[in-house]
Amino acid sequence: MKSIRSFVPLAAAAAVLALAGCASQDLSVKEVGSYHIGGRQVTLTGLPEQEIIFSPGAPPLKVNPNGDFEVEQMYVHYTLLAQPKGKVPLLLWHGGGLAGVTYETKPDGKPGWEMYFLKAGWDTYVSDAVERGRASWARFPQIFKSDPMFRTKKEAWELFRFGKTYATNPAERVAMPDTKFPIEAFDQFTKQGIPRWVTNDGVTQKAYDEYVDKVCPCVILVHSQGGNFGITAALNNPSKVKALVLVEPSGAPDPDKTDISALRNIPILWVWGDYLDTQPFWKNIYAKQEQFRAAVNRIGGKTESIVLPSAGIKGNSHMMMMDRNSDQIAALIQDFLVSRGLSTK
Amino acid sequence: MKSIRSFVPLAAAAAVLALAGCASQDLSVKEVGSYHIGGRQVTLTGLPEQEIIFSPGAPPLKVNPNGDFEVEQMYVHYTLLAQPKGKVPLLLWHGGGLAGVTYETKPDGKPGWEMYFLKAGWDTYVSDAVERGRASWARFPQIFKSDPMFRTKKEAWELFRFGKTYATNPAERVAMPDTKFPIEAFDQFTKQGIPRWVTNDGVTQKAYDEYVDKVCPCVILVHSQGGNFGITAALNNPSKVKALVLVEPSGAPDPDKTDISALRNIPILWVWGDYLDTQPFWKNIYAKQEQFRAAVNRIGGKTESIVLPSAGIKGNSHMMMMDRNSDQIAALIQDFLVSRGLSTK
Repeated sequence: MKSIRSFVPLAAAAAVLALAGCASQDLSVKEVGSYHIGGRQVTLTGLPEQEIIFSPGAPPLKVNPNGDFEVEQMYVHYTLLAQPKGKVPLLLWHGGGLAGVTYETKPDGKPGWEMYFLKAGWDTYVSDAVERGRASWARFPQIFKSDPMFRTKKEAWELFRFGKTYATNPAERVAMPDTKFPIEAFDQFTKQGIPRWVTNDGVTQKAYDEYVDKVCPCVILVHSQGGNFGITAALNNPSKVKALVLVEPSGAPDPDKTDISALRNIPILWVWGDYLDTQPFWKNIYAKQEQFRAAVNRIGGKTESIVLPSAGIKGNSHMMMMDRNSDQIAALIQDFLVSRGLSTK
Repeated sequence: MKSIRSFVPLAAAAAVLALAGCASQDLSVKEVGSYHIGGRQVTLTGLPEQEIIFSPGAPPLKVNPNGDFEVEQMYVHYTLLAQPKGKVPLLLWHGGGLAGVTYETKPDGKPGWEMYFLKAGWDTYVSDAVERGRASWARFPQIFKSDPMFRTKKEAWELFRFGKTYATNPAERVAMPDTKFPIEAFDQFTKQGIPRWVTNDGVTQKAYDEYVDKVCPCVILVHSQGGNFGITAALNNPSKVKALVLVEPSGAPDPDKTDISALRNIPILWVWGDYLDTQPFWKNIYAKQEQFRAAVNRIGGKTESIVLPSAGIKGNSHMMMMDRNSDQIAALIQDFLVSRGLSTK
């Protein structure tokens, strides 16, 4: 009878779990939601009336474009777990010409890093920087001071190190040998592209700083163009940033002209993919980041850098969160955060 | 001893639930993710080089804007429950000059309808139509055939029936008497605004149709400009649309020029807020929608319409999913869907 008695509670517990739909592989989520943060009201005056054709063939109607607008805000989406294991939330910041979608999905349809880190127990925040995606964008050149730039597929193919030879016809594109990027989903990936401006860095940083002020303490994981924003956000609010994960960051403040001493106490991890040597652009960025890392180490910082091919992991592109082995790379990041006491296994 | 024995399983179950983080008010989520759907590759040629100033004060650099681009796709974000009660997923489609954020949040910071319907047991899909938010946008006039339109705060204030008198200074704005919209959060709401084009209806419908084809059978809930897209999607794919919920839809196909017989078997609910009589624009839209509804009823359709003030619920704006009583309105919609056998209470 004793064995039966001790079995009863477990059976009942399993039954209740099944009723509640709480299989162990599911997430127990307290809340999903979003908001905009940052930005300001601007008033446009003196613009001529626009002539807009609302229906094909109809005469143009006059529209007055002047008035008040909210501009330079950013967008934040969050998923909060019932019982997070991460001691602070994990903020995921995208790179140039992209939005938070970077972390939500892989172009081959498999789950992205957001889902990985949710399963690992982190409250996650996925944002769109000023001018991108749901953050919206403002009239140019009146408010945004330059023309937008639209990334061509050729630029994405080469810059993100998917391959050396781009062609309009997918069958004629030549990929990197042994690439881990799902090349068959390249066109799908480029649907994520969002026009960008080169004149919005200041207002973008301002919105990021407000975001950190609201949500953190936190861990910030950045990609590419997000690198400079993430490092600067940590310098502007060092007590609130408990770790930085820099995935192929493309920029950083000049350590000779900036007081970087606040980075001394922040764990920082750099992660680099394969094929960096194939392009002067990336060789130069890597070298500059290594100079920055050395400067942080000189003032007592304890940084880490993982160059994936040196760690025996070959074939990763600039978009490593979408590569076939993205979970393997996420696991390295997770190990780093656990080793710094920011989460449990 | 018997009472203690029968108590043990429940206590153990409660303990296991607590460990698993599955309190009854939490969501048990199988997967969150997103993707883009629809769109096509276009090639731009013959455009002159752009001169772009990458850093303030630096000389302009020449950029070649020609090449291949992916355009006219839309963005879909989904949250799938471990054990949904809804028999099909619930798709939430936004209105003009806005994006899926409409359903994710209320500008006063409270949870939006997405969270309400997740709690009610629906797998939810929240999308951004072509040209909006994370769907991205394309170069104009080369690809999108007109100039974008930016909604002024004055237009939003008046058109969405928050108030009759707009002023740049928030203190001077006069709200509708007894409005349920959180007027103090009006500026926050306008951060959600996204530029729109008037020439993209065809490609927008095409992407919506592909989306329905992929995800449905489903229930589609639309708002405002989404009305015409939702009704047309149902006509284009009637066996896949199990119900339509039309929240202040602004348009519909002409029933005298369109075969609407496929709507006969689809439950359709219209929901209207307050103050419709205060603006000829809304009086006209309401009258036209009632004509459309009558046409559906004449061919055997079984439609419903809730005019909130007639049901004793006063003060709702066009953005009723953000009004203070948004849960009360969502509950009416939930009752409608349950009554049609599409979910359980």
